[in-house]
Amino acid sequence: MFITLEGPEGSGKTTAVEAAVKKLEEMGYQIVRTREPGGTPISEQIRNVILDKGNTAMDGRTEALLYAASRRQHLVEKVWPALKEGKIVICDRYLDSSLAYQGGARGLGIEEVLNINLFATENTWPDLTLLFDIKPEIGLARINANANREVNRLDLEKIEFHNKVRESFLALAKRFPDRYVIIDASLSRDEVAKATMEAILSRLCK
Amino acid sequence: MFITLEGPEGSGKTTAVEAAVKKLEEMGYQIVRTREPGGTPISEQIRNVILDKGNTAMDGRTEALLYAASRRQHLVEKVWPALKEGKIVICDRYLDSSLAYQGGARGLGIEEVLNINLFATENTWPDLTLLFDIKPEIGLARINANANREVNRLDLEKIEFHNKVRESFLALAKRFPDRYVIIDASLSRDEVAKATMEAILSRLCK
Repeated sequence: MFITLEGPEGSGKTTAVEAAVKKLEEMGYQIVRTREPGGTPISEQIRNVILDKGNTAMDGRTEALLYAASRRQHLVEKVWPALKEGKIVICDRYLDSSLAYQGGARGLGIEEVLNINLFATENTWPDLTLLFDIKPEIGLARINANANREVNRLDLEKIEFHNKVRESFLALAKRFPDRYVIIDASLSRDEVAKATMEAILSRLCK
Repeated sequence: MFITLEGPEGSGKTTAVEAAVKKLEEMGYQIVRTREPGGTPISEQIRNVILDKGNTAMDGRTEALLYAASRRQHLVEKVWPALKEGKIVICDRYLDSSLAYQGGARGLGIEEVLNINLFATENTWPDLTLLFDIKPEIGLARINANANREVNRLDLEKIEFHNKVRESFLALAKRFPDRYVIIDASLSRDEVAKATMEAILSRLCK
């Protein structure tokens, strides 16, 4: 089973999934927890090109193609072999992140970004996508809580952008209702963890 | 005007085009002679990932996406700006090489590779594509002429592969008759140079 996690920083998805993984392993399931580029050397090299701070001239479509290339290699070397061995693969962010961030929020177009990702993934869709949905203001406040600082102009610009990302994800959830489960990430840590576990178990026992 | 050169090593395309460029410059045309990655740092970095000899695990689709990403960046940083300034851009290999080598000969599928390249290029087609067509045996013999050695088993495997590449190019020429001109590269150096110059001039004077 192939599970992907989507949602912004501060949505508590990592904490929630760690708890779920622990329980699933106790139940005897073999879990592979990964995220792109996932330690595959070629994907890492591609990621380094994307993240190189010197590469300010990088065009949005170049970036989208590089993400798709890195995704492809991660699938070939890590995800598909694990799925073939019957393991549960839980991947932090996947194709939907490209759709929401680059296709939606950055304006490249959902269908066009989907198109190159279908080439990259050969239609490998997750069985289950957990969307940890939260208002950007709340997610940001959580991240800032430790830093103990006021929300500034840059943060507000970020909120504008992250609102677009959120809308894109919610639209994707409507488009793909069979694989999407929306987790209300504004709830308490325990409640989010519980909802996460329930979503995974109900898919496993289908 | 955007001109691309296609055809195998040993087809004499470099020599023929150098002669044409010289004449065109004498006529007052401004020429930008380039090839991917064309000295654009991001494209170079992508190219390094493709060509890294350690990357034996690289999947064919990963490679195709990386070529498309490198192509995109080269267009954005080099080809489009030069075309905008009214220059003639002559590019050694372009989209058609991906179609013939990866789509055709390596079996990824022409339409699928075309698809990601349309995303990369936003439908930037060459105005003229010169296909330097030659039987692989003859091209190979020319390359080997200096080395003065017999054709071996590996060469024959190469010929099989290059026959597929050649068939793919000839099929592309049929599909895109408006922009393709086939140059018979088995002719003498002077004849090939003459045909090249004629093809460019007749397109310029259209």
